[in-house]
Amino acid sequence: KMVHNGIEYGLMQLISETYDVAKRGLSYSNEKLAALFSEWNEGRLQSFLVEITAEIFNKKDDETEAHLVDMILDKAKQKGTGKWTSQNAMDLGTAVPTIDAAVSMREISAVKKLRENADSIYRNAISVNADLTEGELENALLFAFVVTYAQGMTQLTVASKEYNYDLDLEIIAKIWRGGCIIRAALLEDIRKAYDKKGDLESLLLDDSFAAQLQDLQVDARKVAAFAITQGIPMMGLAASISYFDAFTTGRLPLNLIQAQRDHFGSHTYERVDKEGIFHTDW
Amino acid sequence: KMVHNGIEYGLMQLISETYDVAKRGLSYSNEKLAALFSEWNEGRLQSFLVEITAEIFNKKDDETEAHLVDMILDKAKQKGTGKWTSQNAMDLGTAVPTIDAAVSMREISAVKKLRENADSIYRNAISVNADLTEGELENALLFAFVVTYAQGMTQLTVASKEYNYDLDLEIIAKIWRGGCIIRAALLEDIRKAYDKKGDLESLLLDDSFAAQLQDLQVDARKVAAFAITQGIPMMGLAASISYFDAFTTGRLPLNLIQAQRDHFGSHTYERVDKEGIFHTDW
Repeated sequence: KMVHNGIEYGLMQLISETYDVAKRGLSYSNEKLAALFSEWNEGRLQSFLVEITAEIFNKKDDETEAHLVDMILDKAKQKGTGKWTSQNAMDLGTAVPTIDAAVSMREISAVKKLRENADSIYRNAISVNADLTEGELENALLFAFVVTYAQGMTQLTVASKEYNYDLDLEIIAKIWRGGCIIRAALLEDIRKAYDKKGDLESLLLDDSFAAQLQDLQVDARKVAAFAITQGIPMMGLAASISYFDAFTTGRLPLNLIQAQRDHFGSHTYERVDKEGIFHTDW
Repeated sequence: KMVHNGIEYGLMQLISETYDVAKRGLSYSNEKLAALFSEWNEGRLQSFLVEITAEIFNKKDDETEAHLVDMILDKAKQKGTGKWTSQNAMDLGTAVPTIDAAVSMREISAVKKLRENADSIYRNAISVNADLTEGELENALLFAFVVTYAQGMTQLTVASKEYNYDLDLEIIAKIWRGGCIIRAALLEDIRKAYDKKGDLESLLLDDSFAAQLQDLQVDARKVAAFAITQGIPMMGLAASISYFDAFTTGRLPLNLIQAQRDHFGSHTYERVDKEGIFHTDW
């Protein structure tokens, strides 16, 4: 349940980033956004959160007749469940950077006065000539959704071992699929992956997801690089891509961090060519 | 002290990413890396961690005569102090995404077997024709250093209020400047910023840092977009840029998240045009 809410935080953050890049980067109106999310809800992104997002963009304010979403203050509250997921993941030693990013973004959203102040210092107008297509945005969002579920499911796997919960992830996927805030067509694929291999260590290692992600990653990178260049914060998408890239890199540069730790604190290191614990007088 | 170690995690992660992008993206040898970090240590990046990084790239392994850094296993350990900083920041409701990213990357580094497995599924060779200059890498690293210090100093500010510590950040900057793992020339500028304005809410709001960051951000974006396109995980740099972009955006898309929360859970929202708490039957 806690992990469920963490995933929920991640997905909501990712949807809000897609909204931001479509609105500020591509000048989409609320009508166009409603149509876009409705359409996506008929496809691979079909999910409760995408569905209600379309409804939200359609809703008019009774008083002002403006779109209600534009009248809502951009300070997101939290009840703490996303935070607990992140904190618990850190205790378990398993990474959920997209959920961390969602928590960070809610925190940053809360300091609205400071943001407005900083905005007036830094902001340059965002140039609106992105050549991003709706299909690329859709693929980027789907990529990040899959990676977020992967982080959450892995946290469940690690928690299950650590606390001897003996969780059956196929059944959890089925229950979530049946009805909850993060219900999504995607959960059927997730259920199948755990049905195929009950002790799957990461969704990223499932053949079917691997084929899908290989394909989607191209557009995810394109959208993220655009956002980074334009100054639109897509912290969740960036964290999802970084997680994917780190997880799929056999040799990471953290050998340097081990060297630094041994240099300044004699924390020792392991070697690639033999067993044991080593220390060097640097 | 805890925040000190969190900043230390962030800076080490950022340095390791720069190492990765120079090594895998630009085919730099250890000799060239040593020269690069030595040179940087004479300039704006002057710091203990940059200094020892240069020494590390110069060190040969007694046994194999290879560069020792290449013999070190890329599984970073942690004693937990970075994790505590992240967890405490979440309790305080203040965002430290670069430190979170550093914690995540250490966690991901630990599952080496899974990474190698995933690498064999996904990895395409990284194309080596980046047109990144050393100056751009330097500016990107400096940008992320400043943003990391900003996150940590803001955490101290929030903690000081929350726990009634009555911390004097100018004195803390001076003490850190004097001698500790994160000592750096930069801390003198930080000290000056808090000397000018003792209750500065964020280093990003200081005139002098603002001018510097305005300048540096261009190269930071270029390096990050390159890494995201190439599949090199620079989670810390990406988190730093996202933090900067979110913090400098007066109107974030989190109005949508508030709308979603009100839609599925009647969590209510605030409005931009008047005071109060509102709920809509969506």
